[in-house]
Amino acid sequence: MSSLRLNIIATIYNNIPKEAGITKIEFEGPEIAIYVKNPSVLADKTELFKKIAKDIRKRIVLKADEKARRDKKETIEIIKNIVPKEAEITDIKFDEELGEVLIKAKKPGLVIGKGGTIQNKIFFETFWRPIIVREPPIKSRTYDSILTHIYNETEYRSKMLKVFGERIHRELLFKDRSVRITALGGFQEVGRSAVLVETPESKVLLDVGLNPSVSYGERLFPKLDIDQVRLEDIDAVVITHAHLDHCGMVPLLFKYGYDGPVYTTSPTRDIMALMQLDALDVAEKEGRPLPYTAKEVRKELLHTITLDYEEVTDIAPDIKLTFYNAGHILGSAMAHLHIGDGTHNIVYTGDFKYARTKLLDKANDEFPRVDTMIMETTYGDHEQEGREEAEAKLIEIINRTVSRGGRVLIPVLAVGRGQEIMLVLNDAMKKKLIPEVPIYVTGLVEEITAIHNAYPEMLSREVREAILYKDENPFMSEFFHRIEGFREDIAQGEPSIILATSGMLNGGPAVEFFKTMAPDSRNAIIFVSYQAEGTLGRKVSDGATEIQIIDRDGRVENIQIKMEVQRVEGFSGHSDRRQLLNFLRNLNSKPKNLVLNHGEPGSIESFRRYVEREKTKIGLNGTRVYAPQILDSLRVV
Amino acid sequence: MSSLRLNIIATIYNNIPKEAGITKIEFEGPEIAIYVKNPSVLADKTELFKKIAKDIRKRIVLKADEKARRDKKETIEIIKNIVPKEAEITDIKFDEELGEVLIKAKKPGLVIGKGGTIQNKIFFETFWRPIIVREPPIKSRTYDSILTHIYNETEYRSKMLKVFGERIHRELLFKDRSVRITALGGFQEVGRSAVLVETPESKVLLDVGLNPSVSYGERLFPKLDIDQVRLEDIDAVVITHAHLDHCGMVPLLFKYGYDGPVYTTSPTRDIMALMQLDALDVAEKEGRPLPYTAKEVRKELLHTITLDYEEVTDIAPDIKLTFYNAGHILGSAMAHLHIGDGTHNIVYTGDFKYARTKLLDKANDEFPRVDTMIMETTYGDHEQEGREEAEAKLIEIINRTVSRGGRVLIPVLAVGRGQEIMLVLNDAMKKKLIPEVPIYVTGLVEEITAIHNAYPEMLSREVREAILYKDENPFMSEFFHRIEGFREDIAQGEPSIILATSGMLNGGPAVEFFKTMAPDSRNAIIFVSYQAEGTLGRKVSDGATEIQIIDRDGRVENIQIKMEVQRVEGFSGHSDRRQLLNFLRNLNSKPKNLVLNHGEPGSIESFRRYVEREKTKIGLNGTRVYAPQILDSLRVV
Repeated sequence: MSSLRLNIIATIYNNIPKEAGITKIEFEGPEIAIYVKNPSVLADKTELFKKIAKDIRKRIVLKADEKARRDKKETIEIIKNIVPKEAEITDIKFDEELGEVLIKAKKPGLVIGKGGTIQNKIFFETFWRPIIVREPPIKSRTYDSILTHIYNETEYRSKMLKVFGERIHRELLFKDRSVRITALGGFQEVGRSAVLVETPESKVLLDVGLNPSVSYGERLFPKLDIDQVRLEDIDAVVITHAHLDHCGMVPLLFKYGYDGPVYTTSPTRDIMALMQLDALDVAEKEGRPLPYTAKEVRKELLHTITLDYEEVTDIAPDIKLTFYNAGHILGSAMAHLHIGDGTHNIVYTGDFKYARTKLLDKANDEFPRVDTMIMETTYGDHEQEGREEAEAKLIEIINRTVSRGGRVLIPVLAVGRGQEIMLVLNDAMKKKLIPEVPIYVTGLVEEITAIHNAYPEMLSREVREAILYKDENPFMSEFFHRIEGFREDIAQGEPSIILATSGMLNGGPAVEFFKTMAPDSRNAIIFVSYQAEGTLGRKVSDGATEIQIIDRDGRVENIQIKMEVQRVEGFSGHSDRRQLLNFLRNLNSKPKNLVLNHGEPGSIESFRRYVEREKTKIGLNGTRVYAPQILDSLRVV
Repeated sequence: MSSLRLNIIATIYNNIPKEAGITKIEFEGPEIAIYVKNPSVLADKTELFKKIAKDIRKRIVLKADEKARRDKKETIEIIKNIVPKEAEITDIKFDEELGEVLIKAKKPGLVIGKGGTIQNKIFFETFWRPIIVREPPIKSRTYDSILTHIYNETEYRSKMLKVFGERIHRELLFKDRSVRITALGGFQEVGRSAVLVETPESKVLLDVGLNPSVSYGERLFPKLDIDQVRLEDIDAVVITHAHLDHCGMVPLLFKYGYDGPVYTTSPTRDIMALMQLDALDVAEKEGRPLPYTAKEVRKELLHTITLDYEEVTDIAPDIKLTFYNAGHILGSAMAHLHIGDGTHNIVYTGDFKYARTKLLDKANDEFPRVDTMIMETTYGDHEQEGREEAEAKLIEIINRTVSRGGRVLIPVLAVGRGQEIMLVLNDAMKKKLIPEVPIYVTGLVEEITAIHNAYPEMLSREVREAILYKDENPFMSEFFHRIEGFREDIAQGEPSIILATSGMLNGGPAVEFFKTMAPDSRNAIIFVSYQAEGTLGRKVSDGATEIQIIDRDGRVENIQIKMEVQRVEGFSGHSDRRQLLNFLRNLNSKPKNLVLNHGEPGSIESFRRYVEREKTKIGLNGTRVYAPQILDSLRVV
């Protein structure tokens, strides 16, 4: 056992009263669980636990020894007695391995109680540790099946957590305190995001995405086949959000033998699994199978550890991870890595929006310390129109199109812009700024919306309050009509607005709608999200008047584009150039190194020059700006 | 067997007449050896061999099958009959494994014959392949014992060559044609030079030096403990010259399991082994043993493949190496790597002098193509005094010192500046520009001089001719007096000039001389070579008036420096800033990437700015300039 772990154990034994009867101390992933025979002894010892946690600088949880726990039936009775009826408990599940009881309720706040009083009471009366989650108002199949899957595999999961725990708390071996970051994907390009962070002790992967602009070949993946990435040596995979260009290749790691943890926020876990399973589906249908199967997605879920924003967590012997709101999509996070005892601090922004949107709060700009900032630069080369301007433009195009008898196609990513545009359209229609035509919503949007409803606390105040208190869930508005996939009758029918996936026309029903609607000059297509180089969406938005599409049977179809083609960037989930600069200006801690990624070469180069010019103004005089190529490594300490 | 090898074998079989009777085709390191029963059939087929070599783009050699070779005694007789007496053969050794006969002669040119006629005759009359080397006029123990060692281990060596050969001619596996270089040592510093060149197929280490400014700890080595450097995956180690900061850690590779080839020039092999063995000796005496032993030096020698300048050699399935004269010390080379079928060309300059010196020709500036230039920048921040000025200054200081009754200490590296200064002093004394005081030469200088005499063809024309034809070997001048190590009587005796190692006062008799001579204001010390940061030499040359030295017993000695301290840079084996720029200007092929290494941060930064300013003038407008940190990786393709 490492001396680090011995010290932790000694501190716990020295502080917990003997009468509690410690039976074991387990390193369960990043948490340290203290199992005791007599938990009651510790019922009023909250301060003591805070002190221990502070001393050992770890997250600790108190659990009851298996023998001490109440019978399950009895426990269910006790819970139902303690929790007020209005909480509307819908399910109770037990994890005997970890001594936890999952309580699903429509009003989870009431199960927690003010300052956690009720939650506490449940533990000390049943000796099961309560885990409380929300039952969303719309049933989400994904969310339900993920929880079921995890609670069906408690033995495997608890075993894994212990393996992770041992690994995280292993001995430090090296004196050398160097830190290296290596560009694996999503540098000088948008797609297949992946960054390797290495210290002599440990290795962490930040995002492992796929490339939406190619269907096969080595450019589909990040560069994972180099010696620095030996899967057995990777301590942690950190996923900042659920778009496939950031998480689409995580199952591949498991296929090739990765056996470690994946850290995400809860909504990212859910949406990620949904997106991956859907991608498998679509790829299968389109005859270009992905290099993994649903089996690896299920394994990934069992290996996923979810973290809240601003919760500091040990993920390697010398690395602590903290997530911060990124404002990009539900659950999106910026990852802060604290390395060594203050050796170095890295912020990897992932995709982020440094502005409020209808759906989400503005991205965070306060970090304990930043030495190296790895920042996305998707829109580093220009400013988007303002938010109001964007809404006005959208409304104008819709009105124009409807009045000439046309239909409006808005390709959206299932998660992110889809919800944002729904909120905008719902508002506009309610205020009668646009005529009341049907709004068709295809694909996953319904399921994704259900997941949004499971995590209202992570949405903007306005939407949160509408969902939680006003019973006016905007996603459930009567204006929306769900359709399963492409519908010829809609594509050629009465004026309507069609929100269809995928957002870059690189698959999904949006492509079918586009093919049918493109030749009719009454129609319009509006791009509201980023179009990666190489995608059909990019070609169309760049002004192509005719394009070739290879259909499922390998035949080439020529499509004449006569419909109106418009781009409205103001809804983007990415920060524009001004927002990127403001973010840098407002940072409370100025980085020594600024590493630009997630942008096409022109955008990155343009932003690099822009920053160099504005350096003094934004207080970055001491900062070196890097724009690495894929496979460049940068030693930051 | 790889299809590459099959193709080569097929081409050979299809071209060599059946009557020759091929018995085997061996891949012996970078060479392909064709063994035949009846070599006589091929006696007049020189053109055919040229054609085959051109077709397969490999080096081929014809050898006789074991059974066809003449008896050894008979062979010796035949050789003695064929070779004219004036050649003065001193030794004949056989390598039965490789079918080679080593002929050592005082006049090797006469054994080779005009256009190789005699050499050819030897083969076709004895069926042993002759390898001809020079017997130097002064006996070199090193040189003799290396050859003896190699010829004692012919079985091991031929086995190794076959292993290397198989590896070099293995199948290419990857489509990806990326090339990455990684800074392992000697970046933003002088010392522990090492660069890793990686393609998806192969890995090559350029130099593996030690750090002369530290005695122990991780800064003594290049960063070899990273995942990119797995010794079993290294295809080749390339050593550009024999100074320990470029080759001092090669034996360590063998200690930790490296089993591949080391490519150098012949003199580099000899001096390298001598320097390493001497370093072991010194380190042992000073109580700070090196992390390897003589055993690994001996293994290194058996794994060394020597190449001539401008001889193109396959060292990995996708990499060809060519050495070019670097003008720094005897045998020093610039390494040109041709990667893939024209994918990329790297020149690693090693240490180089872009100016003629008394000892060596100016460094090469013509390469087939250069895409990435990795260039030393030791003196990137200033210009040295001119050569004549330097000589005048040296003479002036010596005259001044001698006339006030003092002694002159010149710390020199055993190889390089030592010989250059000897040539200068010999000339000056002959011309009576300095008084005829004894010139004491310590340490290895005599042995190194012997090695210089073994390779006169690699020295400047003037010295070469003096040695070969004029019987006026300047190194054997009567002015020089060899001494074994420190001598108190000399340090405190009559006026004299003392050339003592090491050149940076980081060990060796120079330190003892310095300690004794420093407090006497009549004395002078003249630094003629680069003083690395952290060395005693640097402190003294930077103007310290008192220094502390920890002696062998761990006691601190205070040394008052009252002697005259002078620095004369004009003899340097490194190019100064103007020479570096001229080199870049005169390149026939302009690099896309210029990577600066082997310099202190200030010098590199200064040169980087200088190049940026002069870019247009020297035709490097399209060139990106990099100044990596250790552990940075740069993808160049």
